[in-house]
Amino acid sequence: MRALLLSLTAYVLMNTTPSPAEEGMWTFDNLPLQRLQGRYGFTPTEAWLDHVRLASVRFEDGGSGSFVSAGGLVLTNHHVALGQLQKVSNSAMDYVKSGFYARTAAEELKCPDLELNVLVSMENVTARIQRAVKAGMSEEEGLKARKAEIAKVEKDSTDSTGLRSEVVTLYQGGEYWLYRYKKYTDVRLVFAPEQQIAFFGGDNDNFTYPRYDLDMALFRVYENNQPVHPKEYLKWNRAGAGAGELVFVSGNPGSTSRQQTMAEIEMERDHVLPLVLKIYSRRLEVAQRYAAQGPEQNRQAGRQIFGLMNSLKAFRGMYQGLLDKDLIAKKQKEETDFRRLVASRPEWQKEYGSAWDAIAQAEKNYLGMVKTRRFYSPRWSRLMDMALTIVQYVSEIKKADGVRLEGYHDSQLESLKFRLFSSAPVYPQLEEALLEGNLEMALEELGPEDPFIRSVLNGRSPSEVAKDAVEGSKLADPAFRKALAEGGEAAVQAARDPLIALARRIDPFDRQMIKRYEAEVESIEVPAGEKIGKARFAVYGKSEYPDATFTLRLSYGTVKGYPMNGTEAPPHTTFYGLYDRAYSFHLNPPYDLPQRYQERKQQFDLSTPLNFVSTCDIIGGNSGSPVINRNGELVGLIFDGNIESLVGDYVYSDARSRAVAVHSGAMIEALRKLYDAAPLADELEGKE
Amino acid sequence: MRALLLSLTAYVLMNTTPSPAEEGMWTFDNLPLQRLQGRYGFTPTEAWLDHVRLASVRFEDGGSGSFVSAGGLVLTNHHVALGQLQKVSNSAMDYVKSGFYARTAAEELKCPDLELNVLVSMENVTARIQRAVKAGMSEEEGLKARKAEIAKVEKDSTDSTGLRSEVVTLYQGGEYWLYRYKKYTDVRLVFAPEQQIAFFGGDNDNFTYPRYDLDMALFRVYENNQPVHPKEYLKWNRAGAGAGELVFVSGNPGSTSRQQTMAEIEMERDHVLPLVLKIYSRRLEVAQRYAAQGPEQNRQAGRQIFGLMNSLKAFRGMYQGLLDKDLIAKKQKEETDFRRLVASRPEWQKEYGSAWDAIAQAEKNYLGMVKTRRFYSPRWSRLMDMALTIVQYVSEIKKADGVRLEGYHDSQLESLKFRLFSSAPVYPQLEEALLEGNLEMALEELGPEDPFIRSVLNGRSPSEVAKDAVEGSKLADPAFRKALAEGGEAAVQAARDPLIALARRIDPFDRQMIKRYEAEVESIEVPAGEKIGKARFAVYGKSEYPDATFTLRLSYGTVKGYPMNGTEAPPHTTFYGLYDRAYSFHLNPPYDLPQRYQERKQQFDLSTPLNFVSTCDIIGGNSGSPVINRNGELVGLIFDGNIESLVGDYVYSDARSRAVAVHSGAMIEALRKLYDAAPLADELEGKE
Repeated sequence: MRALLLSLTAYVLMNTTPSPAEEGMWTFDNLPLQRLQGRYGFTPTEAWLDHVRLASVRFEDGGSGSFVSAGGLVLTNHHVALGQLQKVSNSAMDYVKSGFYARTAAEELKCPDLELNVLVSMENVTARIQRAVKAGMSEEEGLKARKAEIAKVEKDSTDSTGLRSEVVTLYQGGEYWLYRYKKYTDVRLVFAPEQQIAFFGGDNDNFTYPRYDLDMALFRVYENNQPVHPKEYLKWNRAGAGAGELVFVSGNPGSTSRQQTMAEIEMERDHVLPLVLKIYSRRLEVAQRYAAQGPEQNRQAGRQIFGLMNSLKAFRGMYQGLLDKDLIAKKQKEETDFRRLVASRPEWQKEYGSAWDAIAQAEKNYLGMVKTRRFYSPRWSRLMDMALTIVQYVSEIKKADGVRLEGYHDSQLESLKFRLFSSAPVYPQLEEALLEGNLEMALEELGPEDPFIRSVLNGRSPSEVAKDAVEGSKLADPAFRKALAEGGEAAVQAARDPLIALARRIDPFDRQMIKRYEAEVESIEVPAGEKIGKARFAVYGKSEYPDATFTLRLSYGTVKGYPMNGTEAPPHTTFYGLYDRAYSFHLNPPYDLPQRYQERKQQFDLSTPLNFVSTCDIIGGNSGSPVINRNGELVGLIFDGNIESLVGDYVYSDARSRAVAVHSGAMIEALRKLYDAAPLADELEGKE
Repeated sequence: MRALLLSLTAYVLMNTTPSPAEEGMWTFDNLPLQRLQGRYGFTPTEAWLDHVRLASVRFEDGGSGSFVSAGGLVLTNHHVALGQLQKVSNSAMDYVKSGFYARTAAEELKCPDLELNVLVSMENVTARIQRAVKAGMSEEEGLKARKAEIAKVEKDSTDSTGLRSEVVTLYQGGEYWLYRYKKYTDVRLVFAPEQQIAFFGGDNDNFTYPRYDLDMALFRVYENNQPVHPKEYLKWNRAGAGAGELVFVSGNPGSTSRQQTMAEIEMERDHVLPLVLKIYSRRLEVAQRYAAQGPEQNRQAGRQIFGLMNSLKAFRGMYQGLLDKDLIAKKQKEETDFRRLVASRPEWQKEYGSAWDAIAQAEKNYLGMVKTRRFYSPRWSRLMDMALTIVQYVSEIKKADGVRLEGYHDSQLESLKFRLFSSAPVYPQLEEALLEGNLEMALEELGPEDPFIRSVLNGRSPSEVAKDAVEGSKLADPAFRKALAEGGEAAVQAARDPLIALARRIDPFDRQMIKRYEAEVESIEVPAGEKIGKARFAVYGKSEYPDATFTLRLSYGTVKGYPMNGTEAPPHTTFYGLYDRAYSFHLNPPYDLPQRYQERKQQFDLSTPLNFVSTCDIIGGNSGSPVINRNGELVGLIFDGNIESLVGDYVYSDARSRAVAVHSGAMIEALRKLYDAAPLADELEGKE
């Protein structure tokens, strides 16, 4: 689930010039203060940084957000809220389509499984983790020791603080940090516009600019059935940020590969991405075929289809980037220069010099399991995913914490159960279609003689297997899932639920691949990555930022148009542009307008800025991040990157990459004039 | 003058696929009727073609237009009308800036030197011209004989019909046609909007789309002081053309090089275009420095600056295209295939096979005079141009018609005098600045020892020479020019006017270059081109259209958006988009709006289509061409090509090239709601 959502939206990156001023997704402990002071005359104080960090919120299903009122309102994107919007909707009331506004606290809708986290502390635990690997250990033993120590650090912290605790690997293992989060699980939907205006222009306009989307949603966070009053929240600045103004983005970029070696990049380009594109295309086809059956099916599959199209467009952009010979040459040169510097000192060469070849060997080992690793773990269907989780959960929790599969450590169980026992609706026919498609593709890709296929299909067709497993299963009922999980290994082994039975057949294959990947790839790459991380510190000092890890980062840049299409893309767009694009396509989808936008177009100021761009360095996972001015006020809401930014997962992009945000003024204007939500606007503007 | 204006606006071309359906600028005698019928089920009748041809108008200063009312209204672009607009303006009343509308016939403004022509007949004279070159003639003798025969055909026709008569070389000399035109010289300005809305977005948005320009102007044509009632005019169709609809463009594309050989293309890429870019940049710099002196100077140089920026952007696009290795490879392959086919039959090879090498030799000869040919004929200053014309005119008209310099044949004299004796204002200080810049650049490029520089500067600075020549000259007075020209060679030789004296010093250098170019380049290229033209007929039949020659052509295509910027460019834009772009840049130039557009934005339908794109194949010179539907009605007004179209002078472009037009509905809506010009709109819509 996270993998999918992390790929959502904005892929934006750095410039081609060496370390341009706007480059970087910085950890809060290591900001480029000199550059900020030198270029903008601004040095954030500790208080400023604490304010921004504590107002920032991570959405566990894959996005970012921020506290924006004293009454606990959290702002994020509509497309980050989309999963929950669909879960609180039903065939009679589709809030994805109609939008939603709770005029009173009583009308707010509680989300079934939305977990938000606020980063409350950061502690460097590098020495402790690295010490766990003793001299003389084999690579596999070293990997196990490291993992066990990480689990222990997390468990100790959870036990002693009650906070969600995660050890984060930065700089490929050059550093390990313990991040502690204040967690919120009572989150209620307050406002969302119609998806048609949040995602105006649909897949066509996704990852492009100029843009005209009101991609926003508002939740309210509760504790003990009372709205929280967050210690820090962002004051709303309706005027927004002007062209040339310094702005910051505080959020959780999901993943980048900028410090990967050429061997890893070539593997991605030649094997992983082509397969991923094929898989996503097929999943999309399956979901679209299901949706084509009728409006209710279309509603049920809407979230999937949005996410898949979004990811496909992003991955295609990344893939095109990797096919660009100039980009690859630049990346190659960076690595060559780095290795030459390492080789220039014998002690460095001795300590770190072997790491690149080791990783190249690990990638070779990986080649043989690229397909099986994916198809032995068939998780397109959420129900199948949950069945596998239950089967693995009951077995893993019997083991010592340090040796469990990733995801089943003590510190992770609370969140796991929150998701697993969610009351969110399940649509069995959609699940069946997805499982069937997943098994069908596995059969095509692996062939009928593959042991996984023989065991799982056992001579039957994917369609029959999926039908039997889903139709006869009670797993759609959260109480049933809970009973099973709490029943323990014996109960699960004895269970006659056909989906659980299927999961039992799949489980050994999934474990086999995890084990093989650990032994042949991870156990080599993790220590080699650590070496490269350390080499980077030795050679360049700590002047760089680590690759993104879906943890809190601060980016900075300026509001700025860029050369496009033979002319200039403007720093911001207006509501006039929304109507231009809609009428330019005769209001045909995806350029149709919700009714209220047609009726009220004379009743508000169409010159109000709607979206704007900045040079801030962001990527998928940053969706929903606040754009903040130097006073620590909210001036915008990140929701996308432009098309020029898509190549940037691996290499610095050029001066045309931009982060796209909703303007703070547009949100207020829309709430007041289009949604009759003045009380909400008042709360945001602190006018209560 | 024509060279400059021809480079204005739209450079649009053909698709990459072999002979895509929309490719081609067809002569009216040879339309691809089968393709039209096959693809669109439409075969234009003779009557339809006559209607369109006789409603089409050529603007002699470099554009196209059409009759659009029974009362003789002619529609063209604002930027085609710009030269005349400036000539009827003065420091007190700047119609370029303010726009103009004549509410009554009395208010119409007569243009000082605007000549319009309508193509009334076409006659194939290939045999007659080709017969003039006898066996045994040297190449130079052949060239002279051909030129003499062309002059004779033109003179005979002018004498016998009174019509403007021109022999047009098509297919590189594969065909020669005598075109006869009905000429109009009493043309009066009726309507022009503010330049700011005609050219909204300025140089930034020039050659781009989506676009929001009201690039229109209306003239009325008179004869004997009465409005003409043209035999054919285009009925106005306010609804315009919808997406996917078949449309035609009838106009005068200036020049293309699609059938040039690789030797010619490489010469352009490596020598001619780089020099041209350098010259235009310098001219622009000179004009801008002059304009920076004050608002009146800015007004005086406005037309120059517009044209130079426009040409520079176009030439840069063409140059970028020629640097594209894929494009060049495609072009090379076309030539290789063509030559292989020629070589496949011994009789073809014998007749035509040597032509390519001959042209390559001619290009080599040309290399030595690329610079001198331009700088020995310094015509940046219109006054200097007129002085040179007078000096050459009095000498040329004494010779037999057939041996005169091009431009001085009997059939051309009437138009020459119309321009030369024009009452249009001359701004001596601007002329001086341009002449100075021209001589300065000549000095830098040729060096102080060049014989031209030694003779013309004679030890003085370009500044001194220009100052003396312009300040003491009376040539700004049309009566003085007329007296001189009519005074004949003796009078001109004796004249003490310093600009005429300077022209006398320049004249031998200019003639020397014309002669050398004829002897070493033209005399080889003309017969070789003829061979290639004939070879093309032999190999491919007459299934192709000839390169553009600023003569009437018909293009066809469909209204159609295209992939752009990661999404879709719409088939048309609306007035909403105009306001979006204006407010996105805070109304800062070049995105400011005329006052009336700010005041009246609530008073008209902003969803009215403003500009639209079609796949019609056009290029500079097509500016002002009508876009016509299959009923022969006017649905739009060509004014530009998109940025993707700029590479297309030499090679077919891709599926993203588009012709950009003003929508017929936008013009009516603006006339009625913004300009209070209902009577004019009524006349256009035939509602009188």
